[in-house]
Amino acid sequence: MSDETSDPAVRDFVRAARERFLTDLSDWLRIASISADPQQAGEVERSAQWLAEKLHLAGFPTVEVWPTDGRPAVYAHWPSEDPEAPTVLVYGHHDVQPVDPLELWESAPFEPLLRDTPYGQELVGRGAIDDKGQVWFHTLGLAAHLATTGRSTPAVHLKLLVEGEEESGSPHFAQLLRDRADELRCDVVVVSDTGVYGRDTISVCTGMRGLIECQLDITGPAGDLHSGSFGGAVPNPATVLARLVAALHDADGRVTLPGFYDKVVPLGDRERELLAALPFDERRWLADAQSTATYGEAGFTTLERIWARPTAEVNGIWGGYTGPGGKTIVPAHAHAKLSFRLAAAMDPADVAGQFEQWLADRRADGTLPAGIEAVATFEKQGVRPCLTPLDHPALQAVTRAMGRAFETEVRYTREGGSGPEADLAEILAVPVVFLGVGLPDDRIHAPNEKADVEFLLRGAEAVAYLWSDLASWRPPRAPR
Amino acid sequence: MSDETSDPAVRDFVRAARERFLTDLSDWLRIASISADPQQAGEVERSAQWLAEKLHLAGFPTVEVWPTDGRPAVYAHWPSEDPEAPTVLVYGHHDVQPVDPLELWESAPFEPLLRDTPYGQELVGRGAIDDKGQVWFHTLGLAAHLATTGRSTPAVHLKLLVEGEEESGSPHFAQLLRDRADELRCDVVVVSDTGVYGRDTISVCTGMRGLIECQLDITGPAGDLHSGSFGGAVPNPATVLARLVAALHDADGRVTLPGFYDKVVPLGDRERELLAALPFDERRWLADAQSTATYGEAGFTTLERIWARPTAEVNGIWGGYTGPGGKTIVPAHAHAKLSFRLAAAMDPADVAGQFEQWLADRRADGTLPAGIEAVATFEKQGVRPCLTPLDHPALQAVTRAMGRAFETEVRYTREGGSGPEADLAEILAVPVVFLGVGLPDDRIHAPNEKADVEFLLRGAEAVAYLWSDLASWRPPRAPR
Repeated sequence: MSDETSDPAVRDFVRAARERFLTDLSDWLRIASISADPQQAGEVERSAQWLAEKLHLAGFPTVEVWPTDGRPAVYAHWPSEDPEAPTVLVYGHHDVQPVDPLELWESAPFEPLLRDTPYGQELVGRGAIDDKGQVWFHTLGLAAHLATTGRSTPAVHLKLLVEGEEESGSPHFAQLLRDRADELRCDVVVVSDTGVYGRDTISVCTGMRGLIECQLDITGPAGDLHSGSFGGAVPNPATVLARLVAALHDADGRVTLPGFYDKVVPLGDRERELLAALPFDERRWLADAQSTATYGEAGFTTLERIWARPTAEVNGIWGGYTGPGGKTIVPAHAHAKLSFRLAAAMDPADVAGQFEQWLADRRADGTLPAGIEAVATFEKQGVRPCLTPLDHPALQAVTRAMGRAFETEVRYTREGGSGPEADLAEILAVPVVFLGVGLPDDRIHAPNEKADVEFLLRGAEAVAYLWSDLASWRPPRAPR
Repeated sequence: MSDETSDPAVRDFVRAARERFLTDLSDWLRIASISADPQQAGEVERSAQWLAEKLHLAGFPTVEVWPTDGRPAVYAHWPSEDPEAPTVLVYGHHDVQPVDPLELWESAPFEPLLRDTPYGQELVGRGAIDDKGQVWFHTLGLAAHLATTGRSTPAVHLKLLVEGEEESGSPHFAQLLRDRADELRCDVVVVSDTGVYGRDTISVCTGMRGLIECQLDITGPAGDLHSGSFGGAVPNPATVLARLVAALHDADGRVTLPGFYDKVVPLGDRERELLAALPFDERRWLADAQSTATYGEAGFTTLERIWARPTAEVNGIWGGYTGPGGKTIVPAHAHAKLSFRLAAAMDPADVAGQFEQWLADRRADGTLPAGIEAVATFEKQGVRPCLTPLDHPALQAVTRAMGRAFETEVRYTREGGSGPEADLAEILAVPVVFLGVGLPDDRIHAPNEKADVEFLLRGAEAVAYLWSDLASWRPPRAPR
C-alpha cells in the first residue's frame, strides 16, 4: 500500500484551492446547526440550505433538501457519463454538537478561527471536523477529480446524503433511508465522519460496534419502608438491582446473557496481527480514558475489547434516598440504564429476548427473589454493528486512496462507538467503507473542537483518487 | 402476670379526670412543635414552656427548661420522702414530626379533633401519640398515684426528661445527657414513646436495635467516558458498586462484614418461644410492609429478623446518567447510602473498621479492581442497641403495671428501629424499660396521627401502679 504515490496535479489543485476552501467552510461553521437544541431548528434549516446552494454551484445536477419529521437532510446526485460505473453514496452530517460548557471555549464556537500549530494550521470551531469539515473536503476532492482528469462528470455515479440529526441520535434517519431507498440505491457507502489512528498512523476504519439500550426497573414494596420496622425482613430493590448488575458479567468479564456471543464474528488472525501492530501506548490511552487501569474481557487486548468485542455497561443507576445526610429506608424501587455495545454480526433485536431469558434464569436461581419485580424496557431498535472485510474491493480502494494522499502505509482500525452508518449498510444492503481524517486530539463534542487544515486537504486529495480508482470496480449486482 | 388486677380507686380517679386530661393535651397539641423545621423553632420553645408550666402546676418542685444547641428539653424532679426509694427517670419528647403531605389530613394537624371509633374515642392530631399524649399521661398517672395512696410525694424519686429534638434525630441529646449527668442520675429509665403489639395483645418492649450509617463512594475515571470509545476496557464504577453491594450479603442473607455477628446477643429459647407465641399474621404484616413476600437471614422468623438480628440495607444508590432517555457513558463515579441495624450488644463503633477490612478483602479478591477507589464515610457515632433482660426487676414491675392497667396477660416485643433511648442506657449506665401504649394503626409520622383515648388512660393507670410497685425495688448501687 505504501507503494502508492500521490499525483502532483491533484495535490497542486487542492493546495491552490486552500484559501477558498477555508473561507467557504468558515462561512458554514458560522451557522449554529445544533440539532439537539429545538431553539436552533432554524439554524439547522439554514445550514441545509447553505450546503444545497453550494452543491448546486459545485455542479451537482440534482440537489434537494429532504425534510424529515425532525431536521432536514441534503441530498445531491451527479451521475457519471459511464453507465457501467459503480454508484457511490457519500454520507456525512451538517448538524453539530451543543457547545456547553461555553466558558471553556478559547474562541467563540461559531466564529471559526484559523491558528498556527507546530504542524501547520488548525481551524477551531464547532463542526470543524465533526462533520462539516469532512463533508466539505468532498466538494474540493470532487473538483480536483474533475479538473485533473478532464472529466465533465465524476468517474462514478456520485450521491451525497448529508443528514441533520446525527448529533441527536439520528431519530428519523432509518425512516428516511427506507422512504428514499430508490433514490439512495448504490453499490457502496463512503462515510466521512471518522478519523485516523494518529497523526503518524494513517488508518482506515473497517467497522463500528452496534448498540442497544434498555432501562431495568426493579420494584419491591409499594412505598419506601422504615428500615427499622421492616429492614432485614423484606427484599430490598436496590440490593436486588445490585445483584442483577453484578450477575451481568462472569469472572472473566464476559456478558452472561444466554447466546450473547453466538453471532459474534471472531477476530481473524490477520486482523489481530494488524491491530497488535498499531502503535498502542497504553499509558497514553489511559490518560485519554482518565483511568488508572484497564479492565475487561479476559483474553483480549484493550483495542480488541473496544473495537471488536461486545459489552454490557451500566450508564446510570439510581434508587432510594440520594440527598444529603441519611434516610433509613428500604426503597420501593431502583433502576439502571444499561447499554450493550454489539460486535459484528450481532443483531440488536436479539438482545431483548436474551435479557428476558436471563431474568427468568435469575428468578430461578434466586438472584431475583419473590416480592421483587424486574422489567427491562428496551429501545425499539438499536443500532446494528457493521464490518467490511479487509479484502473487500471498495475497502482496498479507500486504502489505496488514503495511502496516496498521505504517502504512507495505511493501517486498519475499527470504531468502538455506534452510528447511523450501520443503518446505511443494513437498509441499503451494501457495504460501508470509511474515509475520515479526524485526529484523536480534535476535541470532537468538546470545547475548542478543531480540524487540522493539512488533514482536511489530504482528505480532499484522497477523494479525488478514490473516484478514479473505484470507477473500474464492477460490484456484484443482485437482480433488482 | 394476668393475675394482677386493677385498683378501682386508681381507675375511678383516672376516669374522672378524662375531660380535663383531654382538654389540656389538646391545648398542647395546638402548638406546632416541629423540630425539623427551623421556622417552627419558636413553637418548639413555646411547647417546652407550656409543659414546664403544667409540670410546675402539677406539683413538681423542680422544673427547668434546658437549652441545647438546638431545641430545648424540659426537666422536672420530684423527690420521694423515702430516701431509700429508687430513682426513676421518665423519658419522652415534646417535638413532633412534620405534617406533609398536608392534603392527606382529614382535619387540620394542629387542631386536635376528638372523634368516635368502634372502640370508643380517638384524638386526632400531630403528636397525639408521638409523643405528647404519652408524656401527658404521666402527669395524670402521677396525680392518680398521689391521690389514691394519700402521699404528698411520689413513692419513687421521680425525674422527667422531655426532649425537643427526637423527631429530628436528637442531634444534641447525647451531649445534654453528658452535661447533665449529675442531675439525671437514676436507677432506671422509663421510656414512654413506643406502643403495644396490638389492641388485643398488650406488650412491653424490651429493647431496640442500634444503627450506623455510611456513604460508599466509588470513583473510577476522572470524568464520564463515551461508552463506545472506552466501554469494555476500563472498570465501570457503577458495576463495581453493584458488585460490592451484592457482596454485602452471603447466600443465607447474612452480612459478610468480618466479625459483624461476634457481639450479637443470641436469642434465648425462652424469648424465641415468647416471640413465636405472639399472634403474628404474616399476610397482615406484608400488607403493612406493602410487600408481596418476606426475605431475610436464613434460620430466623420475620419478627426475629426485624427485632433481634442485625442488617445491612441500601437506603439509596446513584451514579451516572439518570434522566430521560439514554446516555451511553461509563460513569466517573457511583455511590450508595448504607445503613446497618445493630442487634444487642453490638457496638456501632466497630462497624466502620469491619467495613474497612471488608473493602480490603474485596480488593484482594478482585471485586474491587485496579482503577477503582472505594471510600466509606461513616457517621461519627451511630445509635447503640439496647436490651433489658426479661428477668430484670424493673422490667418485671412494668410488666405487672401494664397487666393491671389492661387486665390482661402482657407479652414481650422489641423495636426494630433505633432511638436516643439507647443513649440513655449507655451514658447514664442504667437499664431502660419501655412503658408505651401506642397502637400499630396510630399513623405515627403520617397524616391523621391519632391516639386511642382509652389506651392513653390505661397508660396513666399503669404509671400509677408502677411508682407504687417500684418503690420497694432496691437496685444494686455501684459506689459513686
